[in-house]
Amino acid sequence: MPRDDRTPAFAGSVEQPGSTPERLRRRIEFVIEADQLKNVFRRSPLLAADRRENDAEHSRHLALMVLVLAEYADRPVDPLKALAMVVLHDLVEIHAGDAFLYDAAAAADQPQRERAAADRLFAVLPDDQRDRLRAVWDEFEAQAGPEARFAKAMDRLQPLLLDYGNRGGTWRTPGVTEADVPARKSVIGESSTALWEYAETLIRTGADNGWVPRAGTPARS
Amino acid sequence: MPRDDRTPAFAGSVEQPGSTPERLRRRIEFVIEADQLKNVFRRSPLLAADRRENDAEHSRHLALMVLVLAEYADRPVDPLKALAMVVLHDLVEIHAGDAFLYDAAAAADQPQRERAAADRLFAVLPDDQRDRLRAVWDEFEAQAGPEARFAKAMDRLQPLLLDYGNRGGTWRTPGVTEADVPARKSVIGESSTALWEYAETLIRTGADNGWVPRAGTPARS
Repeated sequence: MPRDDRTPAFAGSVEQPGSTPERLRRRIEFVIEADQLKNVFRRSPLLAADRRENDAEHSRHLALMVLVLAEYADRPVDPLKALAMVVLHDLVEIHAGDAFLYDAAAAADQPQRERAAADRLFAVLPDDQRDRLRAVWDEFEAQAGPEARFAKAMDRLQPLLLDYGNRGGTWRTPGVTEADVPARKSVIGESSTALWEYAETLIRTGADNGWVPRAGTPARS
Repeated sequence: MPRDDRTPAFAGSVEQPGSTPERLRRRIEFVIEADQLKNVFRRSPLLAADRRENDAEHSRHLALMVLVLAEYADRPVDPLKALAMVVLHDLVEIHAGDAFLYDAAAAADQPQRERAAADRLFAVLPDDQRDRLRAVWDEFEAQAGPEARFAKAMDRLQPLLLDYGNRGGTWRTPGVTEADVPARKSVIGESSTALWEYAETLIRTGADNGWVPRAGTPARS
């Protein structure tokens, strides 16, 4: 790609000053790569503006939710580990893209593509840090402990709030019907009985209001 | 404001289901209010796209930097506290707006406006949680301990990376000259000798390249 003075100095390759120590250079490269998350767009509409949310905004919202809602987890959650999980979990979408929750076909090979993306992404870091952060990412993917399940619950509850607040949001995607929503969201209950009860109430209220179509009928406006 | 079916259900007032327990209702209201941070725009240009960054993207980037760079702090940092600080620090800008670093006039009454915004914002939460999270925010504002200073260092280093990567960025704002940049950024050195050394190198390289004007001369393109 031809470069001119309007090409960001970091675009494509990182041109940090030559005097930068190797460990720091690799970490800054990782931080710079994460900027791209701001340009990976999700399906969820914002409440604050008439546009879709991007991955950076989404994971920042999850971090706030971990701070505010952690006490609702049925099993005690280490908040630092849960925060690290929500901060790291979607970085792979820089390379693998966002898989829309209600698109089963696109989701089929998403785990493979995300693992390949994680291999590529975390390799930028110094080896010891790569291993530590990759282990956090792997634990989230494996849904092994209470932090992974709570982080996943936040990941499902947050767009539910956006969809509910937008009187439908992604629930109005053609092909999505009333039964699809609780099926995709019930994983919240594997972390938190109280938050799944709340989520069910939102889903039921949305369905009663006609914001998600029953099978074979369009959603009411 | 007249409401119609395109008005988000949460806009203006929160219309959560009536059965929501009080403590949960207040927390969700706080989470929903934070959505507005995605619509508070900063001066810094992104690297990933040709637009300005918003506050939600900014603080998400800081959270990642805390995870990746914490070992550069001169004094040991509790990463959970530092993460909580970067996640909470800019929420007040929902009400107080973003104060541009190089606009001394706008910055003059920013602390007062931000304290008033914090009073209003955190009051949404249950009282015990309001007090805990407000204490974290106050500690950041007071720049009292190593976590507050490290969080501030991240807050200054992150836009420096964006400006450097964009071959100038906000450094090209009319009226900003070479001496202004280190003056506004040297606070990084109060947390981390290594990161301030790195930041100084970026600033010096940018100045050598003409990306920030010397007093009385325009920046080179």
